[in-house]
Amino acid sequence: MKPMTLADVKALDAADPLAHKRAEFDLPDDVIYLDGNSLGCLPKAVKTRVADVIDQQWGRDLIKSWNIHHWIDLPFLTGEKIARLIGAAPGQVISCDSISVNLFKLLSAALGLQRGRRVVLSQQDNFPTDLYMVQGMSELLGSQRCQLVTASSDELEYQLNEDVAVLMLTHVNFRSGYVHDMQRLTELAHNKGILVIWDLAHSAGVLPLQLDQCQVDFAVGCTYKYLNAGPGAPAFLYVASRHLPRVTQALSGWMGHVSPFKFSIDYEGALGVEKFLTGTPPVISMCALDAALDIFNDVDMQQVRRKAKQLTELFVTLATQTPALACLSLASPADADQRGAQLAWCHPHAYAICQALIADGVIGDFRAPDILRFGFSPLTLRYEDIWNSVQRLASILETGRWQAPEFSQTSRVT
Amino acid sequence: MKPMTLADVKALDAADPLAHKRAEFDLPDDVIYLDGNSLGCLPKAVKTRVADVIDQQWGRDLIKSWNIHHWIDLPFLTGEKIARLIGAAPGQVISCDSISVNLFKLLSAALGLQRGRRVVLSQQDNFPTDLYMVQGMSELLGSQRCQLVTASSDELEYQLNEDVAVLMLTHVNFRSGYVHDMQRLTELAHNKGILVIWDLAHSAGVLPLQLDQCQVDFAVGCTYKYLNAGPGAPAFLYVASRHLPRVTQALSGWMGHVSPFKFSIDYEGALGVEKFLTGTPPVISMCALDAALDIFNDVDMQQVRRKAKQLTELFVTLATQTPALACLSLASPADADQRGAQLAWCHPHAYAICQALIADGVIGDFRAPDILRFGFSPLTLRYEDIWNSVQRLASILETGRWQAPEFSQTSRVT
Repeated sequence: MKPMTLADVKALDAADPLAHKRAEFDLPDDVIYLDGNSLGCLPKAVKTRVADVIDQQWGRDLIKSWNIHHWIDLPFLTGEKIARLIGAAPGQVISCDSISVNLFKLLSAALGLQRGRRVVLSQQDNFPTDLYMVQGMSELLGSQRCQLVTASSDELEYQLNEDVAVLMLTHVNFRSGYVHDMQRLTELAHNKGILVIWDLAHSAGVLPLQLDQCQVDFAVGCTYKYLNAGPGAPAFLYVASRHLPRVTQALSGWMGHVSPFKFSIDYEGALGVEKFLTGTPPVISMCALDAALDIFNDVDMQQVRRKAKQLTELFVTLATQTPALACLSLASPADADQRGAQLAWCHPHAYAICQALIADGVIGDFRAPDILRFGFSPLTLRYEDIWNSVQRLASILETGRWQAPEFSQTSRVT
Repeated sequence: MKPMTLADVKALDAADPLAHKRAEFDLPDDVIYLDGNSLGCLPKAVKTRVADVIDQQWGRDLIKSWNIHHWIDLPFLTGEKIARLIGAAPGQVISCDSISVNLFKLLSAALGLQRGRRVVLSQQDNFPTDLYMVQGMSELLGSQRCQLVTASSDELEYQLNEDVAVLMLTHVNFRSGYVHDMQRLTELAHNKGILVIWDLAHSAGVLPLQLDQCQVDFAVGCTYKYLNAGPGAPAFLYVASRHLPRVTQALSGWMGHVSPFKFSIDYEGALGVEKFLTGTPPVISMCALDAALDIFNDVDMQQVRRKAKQLTELFVTLATQTPALACLSLASPADADQRGAQLAWCHPHAYAICQALIADGVIGDFRAPDILRFGFSPLTLRYEDIWNSVQRLASILETGRWQAPEFSQTSRVT
């Protein structure tokens, strides 16, 4: 096969139907950002919105803003915008709290519907906080009511049996980018009477999702990655409408009360998905999220997926034709259909290489123990950025520049 | 006694040692804001800080900011600033999540230390979310492991017995402003082997607190009221250092792990108070909080308390000498030492009066069923504001303007 050239790559950019979206972001100069799967870039609309929320809404209108600027409705308003992106009919999604906290709510909800079953089945290489939250629930309830069982990806479906209350999986693996077949696994689980919780942290905003169509029971997701809502932005959760009449959740705070401002002594959960709210919503972050989501108003998620696949495919192709990159081994699925918008490459010195690359203006991230991870946000990246990233990575590997002492120091957050 | 005059009131302002703090806030024109106990005013420093965090830290430095701008340390950095205001030695306070979520953590922690006891004792008129969170815990664990018992303020201490695991109280009552004797109740509880959780929502930033000296076990508090950190800003929690080696909590997310970025499969809680962290911190809100707290750097909490008492006392004095206000009855303690920085007045038409007053530029709030509630933030209010508020309230009551139809419509948030 003829090697790809820069001209080929430029042709991809010229034909990119999403190329215009890049202008909606405020991007740093001289940086190629392959970490939008860790923290998405800043949408210009967020800057304007947050300044208005602080100056006008908080500063001038103060407490009245809960009504006149609809602060109280933000968890639902943002939830509905997310619903559209994940294949959920209205009334099933809200934004609130963190993924971890929302997982605890959903675990309590699912276990409550599954009396007599105790196992929460997950994967060994799930994102750790998902496992930790089950461990916390298990410590609290005792192992006779909640027990975490982990399996490898291959063994997972053989572990689906009548002891299992909940199958809890991350749709796209945070390290490898491996994408689970949501429809199939949900159906297999349901066949055994198991409820399913999907973590969409690395899927929402970059993969077309069909939660309703897959008959998913519960889901959580992140808004600071591909949804670009800013560092530590609120998470979201999804509860299938068929469960709403009967389901309860343990973090029953006042915002989930049927009438929060009646201040009654006894908790009575709201009728809809808002029963999953707990405390007062973080308004400034919620407004940032609301503005960030508008970026998707004119975006076709199929196009986003197509570009994400092409971006990862281009990186793999260029890596294959660049001898200096032969020392990296792909830890993501080779088939672009089976991976999300990210690539993981193994190298024993991945940490130092990652640091050297950052120093050269290409931001990826390191994931312990030996993974160099690159994320490919289709709304902000150009194909030419991939070309340039591979060039710089090749230069670092060829010259051995990563061996400089300044790149071996680990920092607290890596 | 000779009635107070406007000249007397102006003299109070002239002598006010905190008068200069008002200039550090961005205040709306033509509004007298008596609702800082619901949402504090906007500190100018927050505007500047948030703009920088968005433009420079998020926009330019992106993921690197977790290290270079110390995002990862914000829960501790802000926690230490709060610690100074609540009489806590370092290493016991962090900011995170909402009061409701933090209460759940502390309940799980306290119940974990109190095996064999099951009662959580609180007050009937506690802020509802506090009661709701215990009810949620009780639903989850079953009443044989967690049972909410509520008592009236008067009966409370007679209910302290060996069945009680936790005494959970709000230091300043959200309606009446009644202040509990923290030292005495904590000691009475400890005498019966009971652990104490104090909710400082209406105390932090306006009352001098001495958590360590009172030997408090646990506390939560709010930062969007007297700490002025913005709508829905993160809450804080306090855990006495003597409990830290042994205590665990149920919401064991990755940020509370001893090594979050090792991504190990098993949860192992951090050694210090950071074991009470759960998910990724909301960075923008945390930075707003950090900037807001700096307002207190040169503030003496004894002076704040003195001014708060004088503000409420002035309102009561003026109300007493103004015949039109005779229809309002004080629902707060008459002794300023026994109440926080707020006053509650009963009137059967409190809702409409509150709306009419808001229309006249004096913002207070209504609390069901019949309370007109005014908060007195000592850093933003002038004594003359109190004079003007009472004048306008008198005019509304004298003219019966509150009876206009537009003031009887209830809005969602009241």
